[in-house]
Amino acid sequence: MKRIGFLLIAVVTVAGIVAHMAHASGQSDGDSSPIYGVKIPAGYRDWQLIAVNQLLFAGKGEQLRAQLGNDIAIKAFKEGTLPFPDGAMIAAIHWTRVPSEANNKVLDVPSPGTQSFVIGSLVNVQFMVKDSKKYAATGGWGFADFTDEKPGDKALHETCFPCHVPAKDRDYVYTQYAR
Amino acid sequence: MKRIGFLLIAVVTVAGIVAHMAHASGQSDGDSSPIYGVKIPAGYRDWQLIAVNQLLFAGKGEQLRAQLGNDIAIKAFKEGTLPFPDGAMIAAIHWTRVPSEANNKVLDVPSPGTQSFVIGSLVNVQFMVKDSKKYAATGGWGFADFTDEKPGDKALHETCFPCHVPAKDRDYVYTQYAR
Repeated sequence: MKRIGFLLIAVVTVAGIVAHMAHASGQSDGDSSPIYGVKIPAGYRDWQLIAVNQLLFAGKGEQLRAQLGNDIAIKAFKEGTLPFPDGAMIAAIHWTRVPSEANNKVLDVPSPGTQSFVIGSLVNVQFMVKDSKKYAATGGWGFADFTDEKPGDKALHETCFPCHVPAKDRDYVYTQYAR
Repeated sequence: MKRIGFLLIAVVTVAGIVAHMAHASGQSDGDSSPIYGVKIPAGYRDWQLIAVNQLLFAGKGEQLRAQLGNDIAIKAFKEGTLPFPDGAMIAAIHWTRVPSEANNKVLDVPSPGTQSFVIGSLVNVQFMVKDSKKYAATGGWGFADFTDEKPGDKALHETCFPCHVPAKDRDYVYTQYAR
């Protein structure tokens, strides 16, 4: 068991590194994600808000993030329905995080020393699309990662599902609805 | 001019401090904001996302924030319409920011040392409601700040408009639509 555990971690680690290198160097040619065939869902930016979060990558920048859901996903989040029904779609939008000197100046009056950070520019957009039959091998979810509206390559998309496995008890979804 | 400038800053500063103390110590009794009479708009949590941001208050906690807009506001943001038309409403939802050990563990594989922060709990919700006649004295905007669904007091609400004056060229709205 220990050896299998180590191998699994090694495989995921190598896949992660390879995916990161591939992501930095090139994209696939099509308009749908490799492995899963997920395209950018029309109108996803108008979906409702699930939650927001923030990432500080060690030496690789800072991000503000928002997760949006289509009507089926939002209904499931609100009602606590698990697994998510077929047709549920989740978008994760990642932006750079930049300090706002303008905000700091104003906020300094009621709250001296406050640091405000706002969105800089779009980094990438990720999607999870539920189809329990089509994506039976990956928990019922198809994955996609787009940068400049182009899908990342196969190596990148091979990392999606393994990273979501630890959230299996929440149907592979990390984000929780922000009330 | 210098004296007027100093006086203005002094008034805003004192108002800010008083408002903060009042906010910490008590709420008004009604279900609408003092001065403006703004109630919590029904269904605001389902409005579309304008943007997200983050605040680090000096010694007073950390927040993740999202701004949502009703259909009229979102259309104006997307089309760059200024001033915002009557009926536009903006909600600013403020949550505490907490580190996510679960996320860090997963993200550590592809990106060692990554720090992930997610939403803790709801702090307060603020609203801006556009009615150019009713709120002519405050740039056409009515303001409201609710904690636990109860509006803050008069002193708190006296600070809303002065803080938004520096954004006059964007019709008193700081948030910009995140694309």
